[in-house]
Amino acid sequence: MQFHHHGYVSGDPRVKPAAGVGIDRPSDLPDEIDVLIVGSGPAGMLMAAQLSQYPDVVTRIIERRDGRLVLGQADGIQPRSVETFQAFGFAERIIAEAYNIGYMNFWSPDPADPRNIIRTTRTEDYGYKISEFPHLIVNQARVLDYFAEAAAHGPGRIVPDYGIEFMGLTVHEADSEAAGEYPVEVRLRHTAGERAGEERTVRAKYVAGCDGARSGVREAIGRKHIGGISAHAWGVMDVVVNTDFPDWRTKCAINSEAGNILHIPREGGYLSRMYIDLGEVAQDDNHEVRKTPIETIIAKANAILHPYSIDVREVAWYSVYEVGHRVTDHFDDREAEEDAAPRVFLTGDACHTHSAKAGQGMNVSMQDGWNLAWKLGSVVTGRSPESLLATYSAERQPVAQQLIDFDREWSSLMARKPEEISDPQELANYYLGTAEFPSGFMTRYGPSAIVGDSTHQELASGFPIGKRFKSSQVSLVCDGNVVHLGHHATADGRWRIYAFADAPPPGEASALTEWARWMSSPESPLARHTPAGSDIDAVFDVKVIYQQSHDQVDIMKAPELFRPRTGPLALMDWEKVFAAGPSTWCPTDIFDERGISRDGAVVVVRPDQYVADVLPLAATDELAAFFRQNLVVRQGALVS
Amino acid sequence: MQFHHHGYVSGDPRVKPAAGVGIDRPSDLPDEIDVLIVGSGPAGMLMAAQLSQYPDVVTRIIERRDGRLVLGQADGIQPRSVETFQAFGFAERIIAEAYNIGYMNFWSPDPADPRNIIRTTRTEDYGYKISEFPHLIVNQARVLDYFAEAAAHGPGRIVPDYGIEFMGLTVHEADSEAAGEYPVEVRLRHTAGERAGEERTVRAKYVAGCDGARSGVREAIGRKHIGGISAHAWGVMDVVVNTDFPDWRTKCAINSEAGNILHIPREGGYLSRMYIDLGEVAQDDNHEVRKTPIETIIAKANAILHPYSIDVREVAWYSVYEVGHRVTDHFDDREAEEDAAPRVFLTGDACHTHSAKAGQGMNVSMQDGWNLAWKLGSVVTGRSPESLLATYSAERQPVAQQLIDFDREWSSLMARKPEEISDPQELANYYLGTAEFPSGFMTRYGPSAIVGDSTHQELASGFPIGKRFKSSQVSLVCDGNVVHLGHHATADGRWRIYAFADAPPPGEASALTEWARWMSSPESPLARHTPAGSDIDAVFDVKVIYQQSHDQVDIMKAPELFRPRTGPLALMDWEKVFAAGPSTWCPTDIFDERGISRDGAVVVVRPDQYVADVLPLAATDELAAFFRQNLVVRQGALVS
Ligand SMILES: Cc1cc2nc3c(=O)[nH]c(=O)nc-3n(C[C@H](O)[C@H](O)[C@H](O)COP(=O)(O)OP(=O)(O)OC[C@H]3O[C@@H](n4cnc5c(N)ncnc54)[C@H](O)[C@@H]3O)c2cc1C
Ligand SMILES: Cc1cc2nc3c(=O)[nH]c(=O)nc-3n(C[C@H](O)[C@H](O)[C@H](O)COP(=O)(O)OP(=O)(O)OC[C@H]3O[C@@H](n4cnc5c(N)ncnc54)[C@H](O)[C@@H]3O)c2cc1C
Repeated sequence: MQFHHHGYVSGDPRVKPAAGVGIDRPSDLPDEIDVLIVGSGPAGMLMAAQLSQYPDVVTRIIERRDGRLVLGQADGIQPRSVETFQAFGFAERIIAEAYNIGYMNFWSPDPADPRNIIRTTRTEDYGYKISEFPHLIVNQARVLDYFAEAAAHGPGRIVPDYGIEFMGLTVHEADSEAAGEYPVEVRLRHTAGERAGEERTVRAKYVAGCDGARSGVREAIGRKHIGGISAHAWGVMDVVVNTDFPDWRTKCAINSEAGNILHIPREGGYLSRMYIDLGEVAQDDNHEVRKTPIETIIAKANAILHPYSIDVREVAWYSVYEVGHRVTDHFDDREAEEDAAPRVFLTGDACHTHSAKAGQGMNVSMQDGWNLAWKLGSVVTGRSPESLLATYSAERQPVAQQLIDFDREWSSLMARKPEEISDPQELANYYLGTAEFPSGFMTRYGPSAIVGDSTHQELASGFPIGKRFKSSQVSLVCDGNVVHLGHHATADGRWRIYAFADAPPPGEASALTEWARWMSSPESPLARHTPAGSDIDAVFDVKVIYQQSHDQVDIMKAPELFRPRTGPLALMDWEKVFAAGPSTWCPTDIFDERGISRDGAVVVVRPDQYVADVLPLAATDELAAFFRQNLVVRQGALVS
Repeated sequence: MQFHHHGYVSGDPRVKPAAGVGIDRPSDLPDEIDVLIVGSGPAGMLMAAQLSQYPDVVTRIIERRDGRLVLGQADGIQPRSVETFQAFGFAERIIAEAYNIGYMNFWSPDPADPRNIIRTTRTEDYGYKISEFPHLIVNQARVLDYFAEAAAHGPGRIVPDYGIEFMGLTVHEADSEAAGEYPVEVRLRHTAGERAGEERTVRAKYVAGCDGARSGVREAIGRKHIGGISAHAWGVMDVVVNTDFPDWRTKCAINSEAGNILHIPREGGYLSRMYIDLGEVAQDDNHEVRKTPIETIIAKANAILHPYSIDVREVAWYSVYEVGHRVTDHFDDREAEEDAAPRVFLTGDACHTHSAKAGQGMNVSMQDGWNLAWKLGSVVTGRSPESLLATYSAERQPVAQQLIDFDREWSSLMARKPEEISDPQELANYYLGTAEFPSGFMTRYGPSAIVGDSTHQELASGFPIGKRFKSSQVSLVCDGNVVHLGHHATADGRWRIYAFADAPPPGEASALTEWARWMSSPESPLARHTPAGSDIDAVFDVKVIYQQSHDQVDIMKAPELFRPRTGPLALMDWEKVFAAGPSTWCPTDIFDERGISRDGAVVVVRPDQYVADVLPLAATDELAAFFRQNLVVRQGALVS
């Protein structure tokens, strides 16, 4: 964590100094808003936290409820989300309070007496095997609390406007007189407080519909949820119990003659969540199943658990739902053939819904929000052309489609009857074999203005272009401490350029030295795209990783590019020079871990941590061309 | 982290439900106070955080300053302190913001040109080698912030009473009419706010003098600081700079012809602290040296650093001091021959001062505070007899003496001239060879009512009786997750009894089963010392560690003793049964790591994490006798 950079900070360094519109943020919704976020679920709250890093953008987040979410909803946190929490500064805290999934066990009818269930398989969970972060379970309300804190502590000082409901919107056509700078006219209504019932219109540059499955924003732009509800219902309950079921604190899939349970232990050591199969729903049920009383659900759970039973001491929350699989064809208001940039976007449940059991809803929604938020921040601040915004739908719609497909397969596997199961190992195998998907690491964006093609992929085979940058450990040269290179990539809206050096150490002639010289020239993306008057690292965070061990690198001989002087005190930044060579504290070498060429490579990473490109050190023209596609030329700052 | 135990908790689980006097805590100081803490430094704030766990105790903490500490003072955090932070719930957060000491480098005059310094040695720091926690540097103000949060979030809801100064006290003799229940009469004065200048008297049962080196409490009880100030002065400055000195971000001892520097990088990536040797002070200096201007200190630093230099961009804080080594002969108001319990105590700098360079001040003060706070909590709540309080001075005074001796040696080594140094390795060797002391792990309390003798030490050689319980990893049986056994021992004021099982698994006859049966009988300490109406784990947290791996332990067959039902919902506690056998997530076996007998052993650990005793499973009489010495017989709860 870097601070004291603008002078000594005595208090909590996580609270950033207010800046821009955060300095004197009006408590009332202004008439003109750059980015209006509708809904404070995981997608909306992440967006608020991200946009708080762009304090020159007037961002507001409205929410129909009159306060924070208190109960229920999602709880599965995939490792990709924990990586995301790290970028927003609260991974270590939420890990400490969450349930960590170490195992998933499988239960089936006892062949000797099929009325009883027995444990057939224990499998190690994939969490720590696929990421440096775990696979957690924690209530959605806490995730939202942490994002709310990140939004409030960011320089934009964003706090949700609770008790305001989205009623409808009109997008005024570009160039029309009514459009102006804020072409989206939004109708709102106060739902709580003194002004309850009052209606109001505001104007926005962009609107993010993060308003969940029944999205009014979706309706307002005429997008359709495609798909339907299957004829299968599930009850879900968060309960504390006394029980003789020994796996109450272990995630399990329970398959019994009486039905199925997906059992998920929750944070805090006592509470668990059970998804209880309520079976096929009759054609003419007309959602009657949703009225199933909790007693029936508990009775069903006890029937499934036989010979074990639960004595429910408190029901914290419960709900009944029918599995739906729906996805919206396009995630913004722009028609495919249109040239104009989109103005209204859909994220999360507003554009894709599915069963809860693969534990994806909250996770995918957050990645939607992140993908969209940095792009809006970049466009509104003038860093990027509006065309960037079309990549949101192009990138996220296929992910949603993939999610629906995965979820359909997983929920039908989960809902099978014992006689349909030939091999009790099968579900376990599927769970582990597909781990990359539920971990959140299967997303791979195709080539676009912000993702390169695979021409030079072999220079860094462990950083697949279009996938998230998988962190690895390196040593910080300045102090010899081991750090995760990826953890320096916080959600500050900047692009990362990692220069993996060729063999010579600093001070000697090398391809890296040549590259650094070019990066310090007026032709470099740094000079072209960093606004004059800004710090040289305002848009790009450029780091170098030498092949030597940290004690073999003389940091003072590293090019000035990697030791920029920034901030009001023009202080040298010590944390851009890394060493790959192993030491006592860092046993691994990132060049080996990630298959990086010993001739060096440049790895470009987007503000949302996805690998944008891999290039040779010599490919300076390609690097410049890549950024010309997605950043506006500012011809500004120069490396001193 | 366990919660939801009294019903569902929606918000931050670190905020405990208010209880006792915390429910409606008066903002004004009451007339009668159980424990009055004077001073909100590290010792006082830790005490407040600990006593907040005893919500039936009226604890107040007064502080002369009108608000939180903002700047300066100590910054070295030894691993033992980080363990302590873990017990108070904020280790992961403070680690994330602190500087981690990975190396300590040593610089000496270049033999080729002694006007220049060169790096002679790099040594790996001991932090992670001696504990699972690191050796950190972070401003004392932040440590105090975190303790303040722990105090405010504990059930007692303790917040410091800022702007109130201690003026003096009188201890009324026991049994005298004036004594009553609150024998200490304390004179106070408001120093800030509307009531500034107003004087007031309150009555206390006990007073903790945590009021620093010039302690008024010490003076009031007539104790003397023994020792003196040496004739050597140091300047200390917290600065952000630009420099060509490559080790600006590494801890170093710099020994140059122009003098010596102890260089300590600080949190945040830019700031460092330098302790600069200002040389011998003339006999008749009369503290003139303390007026040394910052310019002189910076010039001196530059002279020492030659051929490197620093360009100071901001001075966050600086000070000049003469090294003193002083310790008070006794840490409470009781004369050695007296029978009555002490009423007034001294902690931290109030009873021992020394140089800052061994980085001990804050750390030792916190351990003082912890040692005293749980004892006061235990006595005021009636769990323990008053005689317990005499152990405070008996245990901590020798630690302070040891500290002074170590510090004297370390500071004279640090202040040597180059020509006095025969081997440049010597300082490095001393640093590493003595690591146990500055880590905070050398403290070993002698036998007393709360520390057993070494009769059965060989049953758990890795848990030396009288030293702090060195944690090791085990698996939680209920979910297979790896946990640090010691991290369950939070600062909740409870005694821990760890039953390390003999070979048989649960359900089979074993010494462990016999022990558990006895522990559930009316003769056991559990029954004797737990008040009726309390949860069975209110005073003792009893855990079992089986030798098997977690998947070989059927938790439902473990004795009920280890699955108590507690709280308003009478919920079974799942987190008292552990497994030592290695798994994917836990590669080590605590029996091997800590030299525990395969015939089993009982390890008793105090509320401040010190090992109180090691006993065979069969030694039930000895266990009962041990607790009869330090806990009052309540004849209360029984294992159901
Ligand atoms: C009752 C419920 C139970 C769920 N259970 C599970 C589960 O067990 N497991 C699981 O994985 N997932 C579950 N989910 C799904 C999971 O919570 C979602 O996938 C996730 O919350 C989607 O995040 P989001 O930000 O897209 O939308 P949401 O979290 O739905 O947030 C939308 C927000 O928009 C607000 N809003 C809606 N309309 C308006 C309006 N017109 N004006 C202003 N604000 C508006 C809503 O109040 C809400 O706060 C559940 C969802 C719900 C609603
Ligand atoms: C100026 C200064 C610089 C220091 N620099 C270093 C350093 O560089 N490195 C290092 O390791 N250690 C340093 N120390 C020492 C280190 O801070 C102490 O060892 C540590 O703070 C001791 O903790 P404590 O709780 O015993 O006392 P303190 O932290 O001294 O706290 C005592 C508190 O009591 C309050 N107080 C005093 N008298 C009264 C009264 N009559 N009524 C009410 N409140 C009162 C004070 O305001 C203060 O808040 C420094 C201390 C000081 C004062």
